Amino acid sequence: IEEENISGIRESLEGTNEADVASLLDELEMEEVLYVLRVLEHEFAADVLIELDEESQFKLVQEMESEELALLLDSMESDDAVDILHQLVVKDREDVISHLQEKEKAGHIMELLRYEEGSAGALMAKEFIKANLNWTVVQTIDEIRRQAENVEKIYSIYVVDNKESLLGRVALKKIILGSANTKIKDIFEEDIISVPTYMDEEEIAEIMRKYDLEALPVVNAKNKLVGRITVDDVLDVIREQAEEDMQAMTGISDDVEESDSVFRLSKARLPWLLIGIFGGLMGARIIGVFNDGLSKYIQLASFIPLITATGGNVGIQSSSLVVQSLAAKSVFAESIGKRFAKVLLVAMLNGIVLGAVVFGTVVFVYGNEVKFGIVVGFALFSVVLLASFMGTVTPIVLDKFGINPAMASGPFITTANDLLGLAVYFLVAMMLLNL
Amino acid sequence: IEEENISGIRESLEGTNEADVASLLDELEMEEVLYVLRVLEHEFAADVLIELDEESQFKLVQEMESEELALLLDSMESDDAVDILHQLVVKDREDVISHLQEKEKAGHIMELLRYEEGSAGALMAKEFIKANLNWTVVQTIDEIRRQAENVEKIYSIYVVDNKESLLGRVALKKIILGSANTKIKDIFEEDIISVPTYMDEEEIAEIMRKYDLEALPVVNAKNKLVGRITVDDVLDVIREQAEEDMQAMTGISDDVEESDSVFRLSKARLPWLLIGIFGGLMGARIIGVFNDGLSKYIQLASFIPLITATGGNVGIQSSSLVVQSLAAKSVFAESIGKRFAKVLLVAMLNGIVLGAVVFGTVVFVYGNEVKFGIVVGFALFSVVLLASFMGTVTPIVLDKFGINPAMASGPFITTANDLLGLAVYFLVAMMLLNL
Repeated sequence: IEEENISGIRESLEGTNEADVASLLDELEMEEVLYVLRVLEHEFAADVLIELDEESQFKLVQEMESEELALLLDSMESDDAVDILHQLVVKDREDVISHLQEKEKAGHIMELLRYEEGSAGALMAKEFIKANLNWTVVQTIDEIRRQAENVEKIYSIYVVDNKESLLGRVALKKIILGSANTKIKDIFEEDIISVPTYMDEEEIAEIMRKYDLEALPVVNAKNKLVGRITVDDVLDVIREQAEEDMQAMTGISDDVEESDSVFRLSKARLPWLLIGIFGGLMGARIIGVFNDGLSKYIQLASFIPLITATGGNVGIQSSSLVVQSLAAKSVFAESIGKRFAKVLLVAMLNGIVLGAVVFGTVVFVYGNEVKFGIVVGFALFSVVLLASFMGTVTPIVLDKFGINPAMASGPFITTANDLLGLAVYFLVAMMLLNL
Repeated sequence: IEEENISGIRESLEGTNEADVASLLDELEMEEVLYVLRVLEHEFAADVLIELDEESQFKLVQEMESEELALLLDSMESDDAVDILHQLVVKDREDVISHLQEKEKAGHIMELLRYEEGSAGALMAKEFIKANLNWTVVQTIDEIRRQAENVEKIYSIYVVDNKESLLGRVALKKIILGSANTKIKDIFEEDIISVPTYMDEEEIAEIMRKYDLEALPVVNAKNKLVGRITVDDVLDVIREQAEEDMQAMTGISDDVEESDSVFRLSKARLPWLLIGIFGGLMGARIIGVFNDGLSKYIQLASFIPLITATGGNVGIQSSSLVVQSLAAKSVFAESIGKRFAKVLLVAMLNGIVLGAVVFGTVVFVYGNEVKFGIVVGFALFSVVLLASFMGTVTPIVLDKFGINPAMASGPFITTANDLLGLAVYFLVAMMLLNL
């Protein structure tokens, strides 16, 4: 491709879908990508730039001249343009905006930049079709014609009153089937779901999924229609969310993929592993304290992995249930007291079953003393109770502090649970065995 | 609500969104839900039935008369009707289908029932608008009018030739803006993405996300247009997928939520915990074998949690990276040999760093012998290598056998990794310390 054959590049790429071109360019060096984008038509180059991965976007955007970038932003919908501008420092953003040809779009972009990242305001686009309550179908079609170039996908037409307040929507289908002089107010549906500008993007994703929406109008505090969120933006939010949760649980810090370099992969994984190691070394200290008792009763050592593993499993199960209901925002459907009573009951039930199984095996299969079986069984029961409690409380506390609650299933908390479990195990043993 | 006040129920519910009504009904007893559905208008009742959760749907559908259910299915799009029918045994399905009023829909439903669950064929609906290449805009609008009742959301109009082969699409926007006699062939876009009936639903979700599509046409082996998948179906697929992965990782077997009963919650969590317990008991056996050596060198016990925890963390990290690239279908971008060489290199790098840190702490901070430091450090290095290998191979093998690869991060594999780690640790110790 890189033989500087301009018309060849144009021909081979412009028939292709922009997402495919972007996947291709993501594999190339930055200078090559820049070269290809400069060769392509502005509009197509803008589409490709949107689809590139964040790393390539970031590098490209730093390298481009303000005028050049402004030219591409002129062909984008406002929400995509804002995503690109977020890659620049504030000073450069203003420089690029000052070079935009379309003054209306420049205003839209500046408005969107003000909203907090991750809110409805930051996710929405200013491009959508609205119709006044008193317009006729013909007037509305004129508006669609006027806006057709700016609005890529129409979905519904939003109906507003003279104060721009959102009243409802008309499906495009009804516009086609309506006669020319039908008034909008006679065919629109009042039943419409809208969200405020400050709503969190995860909540928006859940609303769009629950109500099967492909677009969602955004209103300000006065119910004035200010933007529209489309389902394609939300699909990306859902994917990013799932990846973040997975990363929080596995403790892989950067956004790495298997195809990254060995060094980058190691670096992303080491910090969390080191936390685990630190926990393990602390654990060694805890066990070291009980070395005297341990040497008198060497079988105690055998059940260390049983205790830590069960504590870990119970903790992860508890926290993932909480994370799931936090995501569905249903956490406070029941009162806090009732919830904890339930967690306690489940933990006791599981703890009794598991403790009994272990007691039976230790005494009747492995042939240890009854007293020793009681120690291991009871310690296990206590660890299940403790791990359930920690697993339930931690994600709720993290969420309160604005941290991703999926972190509660990550190495940090698992390690803390291990240490607590070890301490409980040996304390129970020391007491019951009089060591 | 349940004072048998028919018009009261109708009034209070029919203004509400069907998804909200469904959430409300999910909390009620089955007889009450059945009563409410019978009171509502058929069309609205059908919408609500679609939105109920699977458990309530299942119970309701078993209880309803065939005629009654057929009446509701008549008001549904074909893909939703098929989802409901999947809750019945084959004999009852046929009975219900025979009671459908609309014979065309009955045919559609029977066709869709033939496709394998989880494939494009099972996900698609037969309701969509298609236009012949040679039609004019006016003819197309007539077709939309004819189909308007059946097709809830139009999105695009698919363009076919006389043999029903898919050629492209026209945006609804262009139909509105086109003049009456414009031919479809002059305004349609040839650039269209379609999928075959047998494609897997996860792949479909990825395609719709990547190309920002709200609807995707489905074609058979002869490129004949046979159905359409809409983005709302795919949002549900993505959510179910994320939940399944989470469940596989945390080992919560049934599809439970925090709001379920104590007994149900315990039952869903116990099977995996018991596997963990079984592993722990096996671990006790392994350590028991080395009891003699252990009593001579009691510090060995202290580092058991360090070894098992690190093995677990490394294994989960490795497997989740593989699961992530399996999901993105990019696994075989590099050759198998190259991939494993890379996994090995990353593991060695991490193993050396972690082993060195532990060696340093054990010897210089905790004041153990150099020989003992070497034992713990080298055992840790070996465990990192082994856990990386197992964490990488397991999901690939599971995937080959058609099992969800996210299982590889679940308790079963973690437990196996723990046991391997223990064996390696003690074997290394026995050899190096001559016990």
